[in-house]
Amino acid sequence: MIIDVHTHIVPEHFPPGAGRASGDQWPYMDHTEPGKANVMIGGRNFRTVLSRCWDVSRRIAEMPDEGVDRHVLSPMPELLAYQLAPEDGRDISRHLNETIASMMDAVPDRFYGLGAVPLQDVEMATAELQRIKELGLQGVEIMTNINGKSPGDPALRPFFVEVENLGMSVFIHAQRPTFLDRVIGPPALTNSVGFPIENGLSGASLITSGLLEECPSLRICLSHGGGVLAQMLPRMNALWGRREGALPDGFSKTPIEYARMLYYDDILFSVDSLHYLMKVVGYTQLVVGSDYPFMSRSMMPPLADEFSGLELNTEQVEAMSSGNALRFLGLDS
Amino acid sequence: MIIDVHTHIVPEHFPPGAGRASGDQWPYMDHTEPGKANVMIGGRNFRTVLSRCWDVSRRIAEMPDEGVDRHVLSPMPELLAYQLAPEDGRDISRHLNETIASMMDAVPDRFYGLGAVPLQDVEMATAELQRIKELGLQGVEIMTNINGKSPGDPALRPFFVEVENLGMSVFIHAQRPTFLDRVIGPPALTNSVGFPIENGLSGASLITSGLLEECPSLRICLSHGGGVLAQMLPRMNALWGRREGALPDGFSKTPIEYARMLYYDDILFSVDSLHYLMKVVGYTQLVVGSDYPFMSRSMMPPLADEFSGLELNTEQVEAMSSGNALRFLGLDS
Repeated sequence: MIIDVHTHIVPEHFPPGAGRASGDQWPYMDHTEPGKANVMIGGRNFRTVLSRCWDVSRRIAEMPDEGVDRHVLSPMPELLAYQLAPEDGRDISRHLNETIASMMDAVPDRFYGLGAVPLQDVEMATAELQRIKELGLQGVEIMTNINGKSPGDPALRPFFVEVENLGMSVFIHAQRPTFLDRVIGPPALTNSVGFPIENGLSGASLITSGLLEECPSLRICLSHGGGVLAQMLPRMNALWGRREGALPDGFSKTPIEYARMLYYDDILFSVDSLHYLMKVVGYTQLVVGSDYPFMSRSMMPPLADEFSGLELNTEQVEAMSSGNALRFLGLDS
Repeated sequence: MIIDVHTHIVPEHFPPGAGRASGDQWPYMDHTEPGKANVMIGGRNFRTVLSRCWDVSRRIAEMPDEGVDRHVLSPMPELLAYQLAPEDGRDISRHLNETIASMMDAVPDRFYGLGAVPLQDVEMATAELQRIKELGLQGVEIMTNINGKSPGDPALRPFFVEVENLGMSVFIHAQRPTFLDRVIGPPALTNSVGFPIENGLSGASLITSGLLEECPSLRICLSHGGGVLAQMLPRMNALWGRREGALPDGFSKTPIEYARMLYYDDILFSVDSLHYLMKVVGYTQLVVGSDYPFMSRSMMPPLADEFSGLELNTEQVEAMSSGNALRFLGLDS
């Protein structure tokens, strides 16, 4: 059994936004033909999407081609919408969470769910967690930066403490890079150049902020193989506690040891890169992902090639295919 | 023979800064005891340095312990000083270049040189190149960002065109990360977390800006193993020319192919990470570095372990030890 930890949903419709504080930042679906819609945000078409974003039958029908058996559903990241007024953020999060819950309920045993929280208001986001858990979702998806703040930022600490208390999971997804002044080229580089670094900065902040020291039971998965984090870690480790690096007062572990507490999907587009990640964090932390339906496993090395390239034995293949994902989701016992 | 491509110098003295437009941003050396000085910039001690920064005898005496035979000399990166008024930047660059030239001349066959240029004024920096070449230096060192601009920025293009025309070399060194709002922790993380990403953003900009397409004869070396660039490349490659990635109109190569035109020192603090870099760019692009005298090869995997970990044969060891460095420096023929 293969669990795809990294798949996204878009609801078929959103509640009407008229009269909301966020104005046209509140999204709506412009259905241009059956099974096809533009996701309108801020008066422009953010992305044209197909019914596989919301239609569970179509998703299940396409799973064999993707080579997977189950999806972990999370919102299309732009819908996390931290730019909205807090109450609007809360309401759109609830709509996303209820959509995911209904997709999970529609076909038993094929879907898991990671919802949304209005992290533009940390207290409000923290208060939503219990509700999300009661809906049956395993956790939440958040962006690699919350209106510019890395997830390790102390302002977000109460949220993570409550996530840990409730035994929920967090999937951190690259989005909205904050350093685009340093990227030379077309806007599309946001994705190809920006995302890996977003993941790296986000992962590093979990370590250097002391979050993983304070909340050692947190279950966090980084999107896109943690981006560039694995290539940052040896330097962070070598300079840890030295004048040139971070001061480790209050830290019981090294950066690499903290990194081994996190999970990573395999969306690195390279068996060699994934192999290097595995050497740093161990096969027990790797899960399968695709970015479906916006990307496809067909763009990546075939899973069989990955498993053989990583030189995994049967038990390790089983772990990477589903066991690690179930552990990340808190469903292994 | 081992050539250490990544070593820095600080002059024993600077010309007096009185009356200069840049005020106290003009550096001076505060010698606190024989062989020891504080590098004062902007009224504060940027770094306390020892005479190995300027004393060629001491450098040569320490080479055996470092396991190297020759140094490529480049300025302590903060001295590139793009924050100075252009004329002051030019004058301090000339002082650095003359210092390096005199160190090279003092002991034949032990030193190569990469100088400084006042890139805060592209035209002025371009005009300095001929002078640097006449001093006998092989090229220049520049920062990963020039007052916030990535090296691929079109504004810098005339400089690189002239570098290529003159057959000079460029060493790009991480410094002054521009995304520190995303790093959570003490200022020292600038180095351990910031530098690898600076290198990655800088290297990516050389590719996506079209610089390497326009100037295919450029010889550029990235510091610190190119930082995280190698882990960015597979995603850049997979999305190259797709809707999600960069548009390759006018690009004859893939991002990985461009990356194979660059050189990379081995300062990654991990044989596994270096091995991964080698799989992406090839052993012909790897050179030996140390960051001496601010760091030491003793903080890194021993060279013998690197060579065996990379599974290099005798000819490949020779290439990585000196042949690749000489090619980067334009001294291979």
